[in-house]
Amino acid sequence: MTNPPLTPTLDRVNTPTDLKALSDRELHQLAGELRAETISAVSETGGHLGAGLGVVELTVALHAVFDTPRDKIIWDVGHQCYPHKILTGRRDRIRTLRTKGGLSGFTKRSESPYDAFGAGHSSTSISAAVGFAMARELGGDPGDAIAVIGDGALTGGMAFEALNHGGHMGKRVFVVLNDNEMSISPPVGALSSYLTRLYTGAPFQDLRAVAKGAVGLLPEPFQEGARRAKEMLKGMAVGGTLFEELNWNYVGPVDGHDLDQLLPLFRMLKTRATAPTLIHIVTKKGKGYAPAEGAPDRGHATAKFDLVTGKQVKAPSNAPSYTKIFAQSLIAEAERDDKIVAVTAAMPEGTGLNLFAERFPRRCFDVGIAEQHAVTFSAGLAAGGLKPFCTIYSTFLQRGYDQIVHDVAIQRLPVRFAIDRAGLVGADGATHAGSFDVGFMSSLPGMVVMAAADEAELVHMVATAVALDDRPCAFRYPRGEGMGVDMPDCGVPLEIGRGRIVAEGGRVAILSFGTRLAEVLKARESLAQRGLAPTVADARFAKPLDRELILRLAREHEAIITVEEGAIGGFGSHVAQLLFDEGVMDRGFKFRSMVLPDSFIDHANPEDMYAAAAMNAPQIEAKVLEVLGVAVAKRA
Amino acid sequence: MTNPPLTPTLDRVNTPTDLKALSDRELHQLAGELRAETISAVSETGGHLGAGLGVVELTVALHAVFDTPRDKIIWDVGHQCYPHKILTGRRDRIRTLRTKGGLSGFTKRSESPYDAFGAGHSSTSISAAVGFAMARELGGDPGDAIAVIGDGALTGGMAFEALNHGGHMGKRVFVVLNDNEMSISPPVGALSSYLTRLYTGAPFQDLRAVAKGAVGLLPEPFQEGARRAKEMLKGMAVGGTLFEELNWNYVGPVDGHDLDQLLPLFRMLKTRATAPTLIHIVTKKGKGYAPAEGAPDRGHATAKFDLVTGKQVKAPSNAPSYTKIFAQSLIAEAERDDKIVAVTAAMPEGTGLNLFAERFPRRCFDVGIAEQHAVTFSAGLAAGGLKPFCTIYSTFLQRGYDQIVHDVAIQRLPVRFAIDRAGLVGADGATHAGSFDVGFMSSLPGMVVMAAADEAELVHMVATAVALDDRPCAFRYPRGEGMGVDMPDCGVPLEIGRGRIVAEGGRVAILSFGTRLAEVLKARESLAQRGLAPTVADARFAKPLDRELILRLAREHEAIITVEEGAIGGFGSHVAQLLFDEGVMDRGFKFRSMVLPDSFIDHANPEDMYAAAAMNAPQIEAKVLEVLGVAVAKRA
Repeated sequence: MTNPPLTPTLDRVNTPTDLKALSDRELHQLAGELRAETISAVSETGGHLGAGLGVVELTVALHAVFDTPRDKIIWDVGHQCYPHKILTGRRDRIRTLRTKGGLSGFTKRSESPYDAFGAGHSSTSISAAVGFAMARELGGDPGDAIAVIGDGALTGGMAFEALNHGGHMGKRVFVVLNDNEMSISPPVGALSSYLTRLYTGAPFQDLRAVAKGAVGLLPEPFQEGARRAKEMLKGMAVGGTLFEELNWNYVGPVDGHDLDQLLPLFRMLKTRATAPTLIHIVTKKGKGYAPAEGAPDRGHATAKFDLVTGKQVKAPSNAPSYTKIFAQSLIAEAERDDKIVAVTAAMPEGTGLNLFAERFPRRCFDVGIAEQHAVTFSAGLAAGGLKPFCTIYSTFLQRGYDQIVHDVAIQRLPVRFAIDRAGLVGADGATHAGSFDVGFMSSLPGMVVMAAADEAELVHMVATAVALDDRPCAFRYPRGEGMGVDMPDCGVPLEIGRGRIVAEGGRVAILSFGTRLAEVLKARESLAQRGLAPTVADARFAKPLDRELILRLAREHEAIITVEEGAIGGFGSHVAQLLFDEGVMDRGFKFRSMVLPDSFIDHANPEDMYAAAAMNAPQIEAKVLEVLGVAVAKRA
Repeated sequence: MTNPPLTPTLDRVNTPTDLKALSDRELHQLAGELRAETISAVSETGGHLGAGLGVVELTVALHAVFDTPRDKIIWDVGHQCYPHKILTGRRDRIRTLRTKGGLSGFTKRSESPYDAFGAGHSSTSISAAVGFAMARELGGDPGDAIAVIGDGALTGGMAFEALNHGGHMGKRVFVVLNDNEMSISPPVGALSSYLTRLYTGAPFQDLRAVAKGAVGLLPEPFQEGARRAKEMLKGMAVGGTLFEELNWNYVGPVDGHDLDQLLPLFRMLKTRATAPTLIHIVTKKGKGYAPAEGAPDRGHATAKFDLVTGKQVKAPSNAPSYTKIFAQSLIAEAERDDKIVAVTAAMPEGTGLNLFAERFPRRCFDVGIAEQHAVTFSAGLAAGGLKPFCTIYSTFLQRGYDQIVHDVAIQRLPVRFAIDRAGLVGADGATHAGSFDVGFMSSLPGMVVMAAADEAELVHMVATAVALDDRPCAFRYPRGEGMGVDMPDCGVPLEIGRGRIVAEGGRVAILSFGTRLAEVLKARESLAQRGLAPTVADARFAKPLDRELILRLAREHEAIITVEEGAIGGFGSHVAQLLFDEGVMDRGFKFRSMVLPDSFIDHANPEDMYAAAAMNAPQIEAKVLEVLGVAVAKRA
């Protein structure tokens, strides 16, 4: 570990109020120190690095000019908030980021009054900002609302909905569009600097007029005639016209790393803005740290790393990740079946579809952060005769829920939902937990819902999904590494609605759905030492249920315990309904359903999170003992 | 009833192929007859009238030029499809619209190969069309994909997501933007006609060039210089620039009632288009039927009506609707509490919030068809200190599900969800059923979930929601009239998580959640005649559950039957989990959960739909007898 950086100016800042006492020159100094501190902290904790480094100057400028927390900065997604956290009284805990009991990697209202609105998912900030602004207009909390949103997040439909509504309302509200994809080519940059100087010097109410009527103010070459004027107007309108059509004042593009532009611009806007205003800044993700700037994803997310080399320190892995197994299986299937196509909503790396795209570039679609469209686009692909694998994290699939119901399930179109990051996910915490998909998918008529117990099962479920062409299906699998089981040569389609017995035992049957199976087997081992080894079955399907298997387990045991990495209303509820309807419970049968608890579980490593959820081997063992009436210390 | 209209040309059309034999003059004639037939049919059936009348010429033109069903017309929402159904082999059944066993009021894939993609909810058509187009490019179904979407539906974020992705893909696909709000003022219309003639005469690949470089082609006054050119460019860009920024060719605006423009335009596009193309047509909702054109909603949806006067024939109502009771209650509360505000996603009439808006215009927000934004905007309002009532139909709330999880529940913000149209809804059928909200809301930690058993309960639940300011809540109520119960003078907040005994009885307890209570009481009456009157309780809350009440019912009865107007995974599943965890089931207790069946139920009147769902009084009675082991004919 390298020594922490020298930060004499940052050391004088406890809260944003302290920024008011600093000169502009000192704010420059502060930005440099804040960048060094951010890099140093993330080198120890891992986390989202590139996004935070891209907004160091923006963070300083916003807190220096606006009066937080009275004025509300709403960070879209929230993963760029580390510099913000350092400036808002949390520097002493910044090296606990994303660890159990430590700071969240996202903004979080319960963590600080400076986190005006929490996030984790993208594209929500403008809606929240418009809400804050309208609340203010109606006697709610005073102060400004400032959404900071990336160009990627702007592809999410709800951002457009919010721009449409916010523009219509016409009240003062700010959106900082943090554009880190577009590199400023010199001419545009020069025009931009010129315009920035123009409008920071003129009264705000004239800003639009200046921009619109800029022909007369521009240098000679632009005044030659219609053709040049048209070009110039097009140039000025990069991104801008679209916003202006929606009734937003458009300001930009501005160099988002230049405090000499940001500070006067925000000061002017704070004093004079009266309407919805979008400030288009251009930044570089990973700015100021060469290893991040040079990375293809510009240091988006990182493990702990060496400060000097940027080399990441990763624990060696024992087995390939579920994500990779999924991708490899899908590629293998797609080699044999040219109707297979894949859809991702801006997560090609996260879902492994980057590998699929390398092999089949024409058959892989990245639709942007647009889960609603991803689902219905997949429905269209299926209606057009293809076999789409719509590959979305459990938590983000919530964004496409209505489309799953309305466009896929009701029409019984064979869209295959590959649901990654099912269950608890670790450092990303509650916003990224995949807790609800078993429930919301299994309640849909005609939907086939599977969960892989291990990575070999996942291979077979991909094959099952390929073969199942008359209705929609979903299969879920968790974040992280597989179990290290032997892998099959190729996937073999499973019989729909058939589970399997994993281990025979007596008295109690544990019916597992998903990767808790390993914990169930651990519990079984421990119970076996008491002579109480339960039967263990892998349900494979939450829908349709394996009636035969479940009723047999009921006949042959005193109790059934279901285990699933999901909230109430899912697999266990369907099994219970079957047992009720068949009259099994009437005669005194015992049933328990182990589900995620009725609380949002904070970030920690997954094992700790499952301990908090009471779903690890010891708690499964305790549940068996409880059902059997064997006295034990409660929840070992 | 008036005689059916004379339709000699329409009589020669059985399928769209027959349109190919007609001259343009005959197509004009056909359009007139199609309009008359549509009006005549809807006068007998009721249904969506205005939207269909607005697209009569468009329907004729698309079917005359394109080769349906090989080419796919995707009607957004689908409620404008009656003329389309008449032309595509379903004229003989058009007078069965929206009745049991009759034609659906929306497009439906299972009804006809000409219904390429079903709908009911809005804003999905562009996603589906892009899906069809990409499937075609990869060897799937051949043919063109043509989405027809209204200007209202275009405010839905997923339409923007689809434009963004479709434009990026760059393949041939058509979107007809059916703009029925903008009236063509003469100058714009003249320019439009001029441009239409220009581009239908020129090769398509020159169209954009013509439009872009139109300075030289336009009449003298436009050539004067930069200023005029700028104005002209802005004039041409009405709506267009926004689409062009997203890489769509923009054509229009075009008079959507003028077949002499539509036919040559579509012929030209069919021959020459190579890229994503948006055709902006301007139409008049309700066109050609004076009573519809003159109505404020331009005849959006109607009961059966008299053809000559347009007067609607409505059955007299016995009690006010739940919707109206909700609105009146919210207004009464808002008189006392100025923090109360209301949010609707383009359904002010449907939700009753038009009444609220009349009384409190500044405190009511119509955000457009934008449920995602509606939810997060409400979260922002709540974070800003107000008390937002986010009022959305159950089925449309599915669009905002992730926002409910991520922005409301995780942050525990006190947004009040008023969920109208809960349960089965009648003529609108499966796409509009409110089946899933109890499940998807009750699985969320911290959410309070209520259902009103009658309209008086609804009044109290509005008051409860006002008072509950430390966490989110939801209350659901159905479409249609209340029970006619005595109404309270004002709402009194309920104790959170407390149900009520409605009628004492023996052996079996029926625990009802929602408006099935009336059917439960009917069943009780019938059972009382056999001396088997059950206890009846109204749970009021699915979350938190009334533990005390439920455990008492369990102690004092042989069986509990829960009844709810929702799918599996909701109220009944939560009650079951409680009974399991308390060990109640271990000793041989009987439990049944009556939920909506595992199928999508087709349109019919609500009573027939609930009969199909086995949730009316006779089936509830049969369930009690089954649990008691009393022999009866199964499902009377």
